[in-house]
Amino acid sequence: MLTKIGFISLDELKDSIRNDTVLISIMFANNEIGTIQPIKEISKIAKESNVIFHTDCVQAIGNVKINVDELGIDLLSMSAHKFYGPKGVGALYVRNGIDFAKIQDGGHQERNKRAGTENVAGIVGLGKAIELANNNLENYNSKLLKLRNYFIREITSKFKNVKINGDLKQRLPGNVNISFPNTDAEEVLLKLDSQGICASAGSACSSGSSEPSHVLTAIGLDKNLVGGSLRITFGEQNNIDEVKFLINVLERILG
Amino acid sequence: MLTKIGFISLDELKDSIRNDTVLISIMFANNEIGTIQPIKEISKIAKESNVIFHTDCVQAIGNVKINVDELGIDLLSMSAHKFYGPKGVGALYVRNGIDFAKIQDGGHQERNKRAGTENVAGIVGLGKAIELANNNLENYNSKLLKLRNYFIREITSKFKNVKINGDLKQRLPGNVNISFPNTDAEEVLLKLDSQGICASAGSACSSGSSEPSHVLTAIGLDKNLVGGSLRITFGEQNNIDEVKFLINVLERILG
Repeated sequence: MLTKIGFISLDELKDSIRNDTVLISIMFANNEIGTIQPIKEISKIAKESNVIFHTDCVQAIGNVKINVDELGIDLLSMSAHKFYGPKGVGALYVRNGIDFAKIQDGGHQERNKRAGTENVAGIVGLGKAIELANNNLENYNSKLLKLRNYFIREITSKFKNVKINGDLKQRLPGNVNISFPNTDAEEVLLKLDSQGICASAGSACSSGSSEPSHVLTAIGLDKNLVGGSLRITFGEQNNIDEVKFLINVLERILG
Repeated sequence: MLTKIGFISLDELKDSIRNDTVLISIMFANNEIGTIQPIKEISKIAKESNVIFHTDCVQAIGNVKINVDELGIDLLSMSAHKFYGPKGVGALYVRNGIDFAKIQDGGHQERNKRAGTENVAGIVGLGKAIELANNNLENYNSKLLKLRNYFIREITSKFKNVKINGDLKQRLPGNVNISFPNTDAEEVLLKLDSQGICASAGSACSSGSSEPSHVLTAIGLDKNLVGGSLRITFGEQNNIDEVKFLINVLERILG
């Protein structure tokens, strides 16, 4: 169960641990509504039950500070393209002493865990990208926050009936998820696209699907809001003029 | 069972097909001794039994002409770095109408068969590399044959007791696998390496392992020859002077 703003229930998590539970796996931050889970509290629960804690940090890495020791993370996954590294390359952080089964047979590459000649250029690219992202983390984070907060302030003042989904504090800095009542988000996306603006209605992984967002459904959003929800993500190459342009276009489309 | 020069037994293949056999998977060409299997005959056997035929062409693609229709191949795998494309990228050719289970869950990328954001640069690189390899196939093939045949001629005239493993005709053009009796191949490799020559004693996938080559064992090579076997592969960047240098160094080491 998720709360209305997308947090998992820690009590429910505790209750769901059984004697044979070996792993808890929770997304660090949600890809659609940006909600950042209470990772430290989750890892504490895992530790108390002697359960390994994995977190999918694909959305969060490069956007917020993540220290695996401070947060008690045992396993952490990331994708390079989320922090401006090469596409198609990811990494799994594994705390010393934790072993896991390989998922494919073959050669002995990558310590017997992933058979196949290594993607050397991709690996080096991921390493360099995370180094740059880490060095630039504070700047990047505050830049995105500025763009996002400006957008939210302006859009909520211009559209009185919109709803911002997810938490406003424990949230990825570049993420906005906004619902316009009785609106067809797909139609809005097409119009935004024709103005050179890329946004989405849900997860990029299920783009092209007409299923309603399972995240927005899970936080109990009204049906007539789910279908009119846009996911807008600001990034390194965006600036305040583009945010103003976006607001302007949304006003023309929906005003 | 393999023959003494590394061919599979077609009769044994036929006999091993059961009512519940759905797939025959045979390497197009062996990575250690370069032997090219009778692919057309194998695919005929598969077809007669209504069994899908997969072939691992990692060693062969870019070295010899492969036409999936002429050869009756249903599934074909390749690795880009074997034809001078990027490392860490491969492709699976799938004949129209053949379906198969995915190996990982997640997003709907690559027609639901391989979840995860695509390695776009790698994919484009593989495509370009195979195009270049294909355009240059005849030149490349005859260049490698020239280097290899020169090497074999010279080495067998200088070392009377060496044995060339594998077939001399149905063979990858750049591959030589040669046994020196009562010799420690690892020692020879170290000495070659110190002269800037890279060779191997078996499969690159099991480099560092001290197990005797399972391929050379399977073709029934004498034990005192297995331990003294070198796998030498010529490629695009090699020339006749380098082959002469290699022979020269081998004479100094072993002469």
